[in-house]
Amino acid sequence: MLVVMSSYATDEEIAQVVAAIERSGLVARVIEGGERAAIGILENRGPVDPAPFLLLPGVKDTIPVSKPYKLVSREFELADTVVQVGDVAIGGEGFVLIAGPCAVESETQALTIAEGVRSQGAQLFRGGAYKPRTSPYSFQGLGEEGLKILAKVREETGLYVVTEALDHELCELVEEYADVIQIGARNMQNFSLLNRAGQARKPILLKRGMAATIQEWLMAAEYIMAKGNPNVILCERGVRTFADHSRNTLDLSAVPVVKKESHLPIIVDPSHACGRRDQVIPMSRASVAAGVHGLMVEVHHEPEKALSDGQQALFPWQFAEMVSQIVPFLTEEQRVHLLKDRVS
Amino acid sequence: MLVVMSSYATDEEIAQVVAAIERSGLVARVIEGGERAAIGILENRGPVDPAPFLLLPGVKDTIPVSKPYKLVSREFELADTVVQVGDVAIGGEGFVLIAGPCAVESETQALTIAEGVRSQGAQLFRGGAYKPRTSPYSFQGLGEEGLKILAKVREETGLYVVTEALDHELCELVEEYADVIQIGARNMQNFSLLNRAGQARKPILLKRGMAATIQEWLMAAEYIMAKGNPNVILCERGVRTFADHSRNTLDLSAVPVVKKESHLPIIVDPSHACGRRDQVIPMSRASVAAGVHGLMVEVHHEPEKALSDGQQALFPWQFAEMVSQIVPFLTEEQRVHLLKDRVS
Amino acid sequence: MLVVMSSYATDEEIAQVVAAIERSGLVARVIEGGERAAIGILENRGPVDPAPFLLLPGVKDTIPVSKPYKLVSREFELADTVVQVGDVAIGGEGFVLIAGPCAVESETQALTIAEGVRSQGAQLFRGGAYKPRTSPYSFQGLGEEGLKILAKVREETGLYVVTEALDHELCELVEEYADVIQIGARNMQNFSLLNRAGQARKPILLKRGMAATIQEWLMAAEYIMAKGNPNVILCERGVRTFADHSRNTLDLSAVPVVKKESHLPIIVDPSHACGRRDQVIPMSRASVAAGVHGLMVEVHHEPEKALSDGQQALFPWQFAEMVSQIVPFLTEEQRVHLLKDRVS
Amino acid sequence: MLVVMSSYATDEEIAQVVAAIERSGLVARVIEGGERAAIGILENRGPVDPAPFLLLPGVKDTIPVSKPYKLVSREFELADTVVQVGDVAIGGEGFVLIAGPCAVESETQALTIAEGVRSQGAQLFRGGAYKPRTSPYSFQGLGEEGLKILAKVREETGLYVVTEALDHELCELVEEYADVIQIGARNMQNFSLLNRAGQARKPILLKRGMAATIQEWLMAAEYIMAKGNPNVILCERGVRTFADHSRNTLDLSAVPVVKKESHLPIIVDPSHACGRRDQVIPMSRASVAAGVHGLMVEVHHEPEKALSDGQQALFPWQFAEMVSQIVPFLTEEQRVHLLKDRVS
Repeated sequence: MLVVMSSYATDEEIAQVVAAIERSGLVARVIEGGERAAIGILENRGPVDPAPFLLLPGVKDTIPVSKPYKLVSREFELADTVVQVGDVAIGGEGFVLIAGPCAVESETQALTIAEGVRSQGAQLFRGGAYKPRTSPYSFQGLGEEGLKILAKVREETGLYVVTEALDHELCELVEEYADVIQIGARNMQNFSLLNRAGQARKPILLKRGMAATIQEWLMAAEYIMAKGNPNVILCERGVRTFADHSRNTLDLSAVPVVKKESHLPIIVDPSHACGRRDQVIPMSRASVAAGVHGLMVEVHHEPEKALSDGQQALFPWQFAEMVSQIVPFLTEEQRVHLLKDRVS
Repeated sequence: MLVVMSSYATDEEIAQVVAAIERSGLVARVIEGGERAAIGILENRGPVDPAPFLLLPGVKDTIPVSKPYKLVSREFELADTVVQVGDVAIGGEGFVLIAGPCAVESETQALTIAEGVRSQGAQLFRGGAYKPRTSPYSFQGLGEEGLKILAKVREETGLYVVTEALDHELCELVEEYADVIQIGARNMQNFSLLNRAGQARKPILLKRGMAATIQEWLMAAEYIMAKGNPNVILCERGVRTFADHSRNTLDLSAVPVVKKESHLPIIVDPSHACGRRDQVIPMSRASVAAGVHGLMVEVHHEPEKALSDGQQALFPWQFAEMVSQIVPFLTEEQRVHLLKDRVS
Repeated sequence: MLVVMSSYATDEEIAQVVAAIERSGLVARVIEGGERAAIGILENRGPVDPAPFLLLPGVKDTIPVSKPYKLVSREFELADTVVQVGDVAIGGEGFVLIAGPCAVESETQALTIAEGVRSQGAQLFRGGAYKPRTSPYSFQGLGEEGLKILAKVREETGLYVVTEALDHELCELVEEYADVIQIGARNMQNFSLLNRAGQARKPILLKRGMAATIQEWLMAAEYIMAKGNPNVILCERGVRTFADHSRNTLDLSAVPVVKKESHLPIIVDPSHACGRRDQVIPMSRASVAAGVHGLMVEVHHEPEKALSDGQQALFPWQFAEMVSQIVPFLTEEQRVHLLKDRVS
Repeated sequence: MLVVMSSYATDEEIAQVVAAIERSGLVARVIEGGERAAIGILENRGPVDPAPFLLLPGVKDTIPVSKPYKLVSREFELADTVVQVGDVAIGGEGFVLIAGPCAVESETQALTIAEGVRSQGAQLFRGGAYKPRTSPYSFQGLGEEGLKILAKVREETGLYVVTEALDHELCELVEEYADVIQIGARNMQNFSLLNRAGQARKPILLKRGMAATIQEWLMAAEYIMAKGNPNVILCERGVRTFADHSRNTLDLSAVPVVKKESHLPIIVDPSHACGRRDQVIPMSRASVAAGVHGLMVEVHHEPEKALSDGQQALFPWQFAEMVSQIVPFLTEEQRVHLLKDRVS
């Protein structure tokens, strides 16, 4: 950390800051700048709290230098993490396609959609059994009944299933039925849930919070890894901005930045980012081109009857069109990977 | 809801929309505009899902007309809700001062600060026993030990205590010790916690999420009320924007808007909004002038040693200064109310 | 427009609103909803000002229905506009590559970079002669000297040139030398400049403002078209959000939305969006995949000596790499178009 | 500036950075941290461009230390600047009340409103003669005719007048008629206009841009001061965020921050921030309590007939109410100042 002094700071004030740093067991080095002095804090392990120094006379500001994350960091682990879900490899050179309805509504609905998306190459099926809804009066999901339907989908179609755990208690049940446990955007900083997910034996799909910086998002993944679960898949799903033409603003530059800063796989959910079906296919293409390790897309065979988020779900024929449109943008290796699962 | 047709929509397409509305058991009324037609949906109870209509040919957009909240709404309950915490009335004509450290660190620390803030008129003591921290490596609070210290503070000083419940399970324990249960900004849409809070016998202090619209915030309160707890206190604490001179951007226009839309009390937490102690006093004055029902402020007698958020905590002498500065901005009734608790 | 009444509004209040609408020469239609009434305003040409109605007793809100733009609208002109710059077609099925330094610094610099980018397929050369800089102490561009260098570049390399006009007066001079006149993000709502650009005989490249909605951006284009210049190229360059890992947040969903709402061509400037060179290539790929009509990219042969924005400029070898990486994402037609200009 | 090295950087890479710094004529000092080294750049005058250093091998990031502004800075000039407009002192201990319609519509309208606001203590009259409108089809102001009406208002009422100059050319004309020249939010980074304003003989009222950081805003003021005009009044008018309950989000923490960073006076325009008249009075109270040097408020005697922004204009009786409500929040000195101008 760097302690920046006011341009009026006296030598005595500088000496006091140095003394305070040394009292904390750290090493101080004064840097005399053109207009003002700054004092570097050295030999710290992990981040230093700026509070004690901001209070000293003559101090203008403090500037952190190190990044606060460790286990998720590319500096800590150079090679890409590949999260294995059965025979599906997420991360590295692979490409995963996750598709399904916003919510599981019935066995027929789930199986119909699952068959549809499997035939186009999807390897994982998504579908909410517990739904985080803005309104207490909206459909909240089928609960455990929904989890059982998901298990049935896996049995019948061979698709692995991903579904959201709304809290640390439900995590138990979700872990039992699902292959991947999703933590939603609204829960990205639900630390009880993160800690519980860190103890799960299943991989975690961690969505970016609606107003989370990349650093906060990586720190949420750090919680999970710090508790012992190395299998974290990051999922960008748009952030909240002033823009009103899409439900959220898809922040695709997160893709190269996460890939530079971290070894964890990153996928994109264009459905929640856009919120309107006609933006989903172009944003899927763009995500693939940006270098994601996979996509998670909402599909519904009867979106006009969907119990939630129908306006963003693709029709099965649109999903097939989406797959056709992204294939040319995949790497050779990803293409082989994806197409082997596609029913011709 | 209003279904807006494309300017190219045919009469047949309009007729299809009308038929679809009527099939849903609702009433449709066509409005022929200058450039395009729109179709009003009538006789609905509660919000209508736009999804089925957005899919029909010729439809350009849908526009909601009713607000989705009910129990929290001023239209539902005209009179101000007053939440009673012991003999302290929060809401209506009253004014409540809540103060204390970010985290409870020790009995000595808590009692020292509590005595200090009580002597200046604070009626409630705040202090975290469970802390939501961005990093898993930061101090996470003393846990139940912290709750016991809070109970001791109440016993010794007569101050009521408010502290955060991080999840629905901890809510049990917090409810046992605290007088008011806080739900933090990161948990504003943790629906398990909201549902549990709706069953608590203690009032809930519900902070606004970092990127929450006022409608989403009121819907979170609606969750609590819908489960049976009418005692909800709303707390504005700044929202996340591009601005970088304060930790968050304090959105004071939320105060008149919430007071117009809802009957629930609203207070402001300038400490988390600003994140730097030198902005807290001016923003406290501004909050009072905007018409809040109270303030929640961080105070620490040794902020340079605080285990979290030291740079935003006021020194006790600054808290005294803050109280002096807000007094002229209180109404006569609020002033009497506040000053009777101030030790002269 | 729809005038929404309070749920307490009386019949008399509704009648007053109807009367007010009719006094304005418009037609009113009352829609009795489940909870409240709303009143549609019909037979208006262009948007209606909500102000007079918001003031009437019993009125809760007003909701606009029509879009305010006309000439730029896809409803007005179904076919894609193709802006012709010499033999380069921008819009429709084509693809344009615009490249060059942030600022023109010298004839040698400009010619060196121009030769480099031309050899990779660029058809237009960009370079600022007048630079909008946050600080009055930063390099402000070479002025007319810079324009002369741009003319020299065109003469020597055959590349068409695009450069920014900072105000309506400079527009005169820029129009004389350049092939395309750029209006920068900070000037997107400089209406004097927009009106002047509407009278120019050269195409206008209109960047999206840092905090502009798509509607405001299209309205800025409407200013230019309303004054008689149909040749407007829209350029997305990122918007300002809380995210701090890139200079701005590139909003790629603007691409499908603009293409749906308007017939004008849209290109992307990933350099200003990202602000860091290592994000530019992935975001170029993503932009192409999203369906843009072209890219505008900063390139500098000695970015470490650049007088402005050096950290976002690609090295010439990186630009070559970028072109290689986007080629697979182009349509067949775009590829032919681009590669014919590439020096093998 | 601080150059932060990667934790893998070699001694040789560090030496290369040092050499590069020294080649630029600056002084380098290496700081060996716990995890990584950093290199301070010393003896620079003004900001250093990070670009050349970011390119060197082993460099992870650069961190600026000094602020880029000088003339506007509190460090440069400790005492508050007081801008004198006739006998009205803006800044320091004074308080100024500026009121009037969004646009000048006719002599009768302007004089009626001017008389109304003068009687309540307003010292300056505001009213646009040239209006920056999102749509080319909206009323654009009366032009020079409007300026003449403003001159008439001054003559008849003794109120000084402030009006917007839309570009550097119009600045000439506005300067001739007005007492204070306004630069609007959309033009905050119109550098031609800022440079022209720096040569004006009249004070400049500089509104904050819709997405401007405080640093950018102060740099815009620095442009004006650098050209020789020391009389700049800053005006906060809300910034653009995701929040949708007000037109913009009024950022009142800007007030203490600007007062700390700069010696220039700062006022608030609650009308444009809120966009709805029922938020204006509470936000006026809050602004005064936050410590502003004045308010600029829209008032119209017939807002339902206003040609622009009618929904945010106060009725004259509401303006009187607003003045009554802010008076108790003024300092003794401000109150005397304001009330001497109020017609009892």
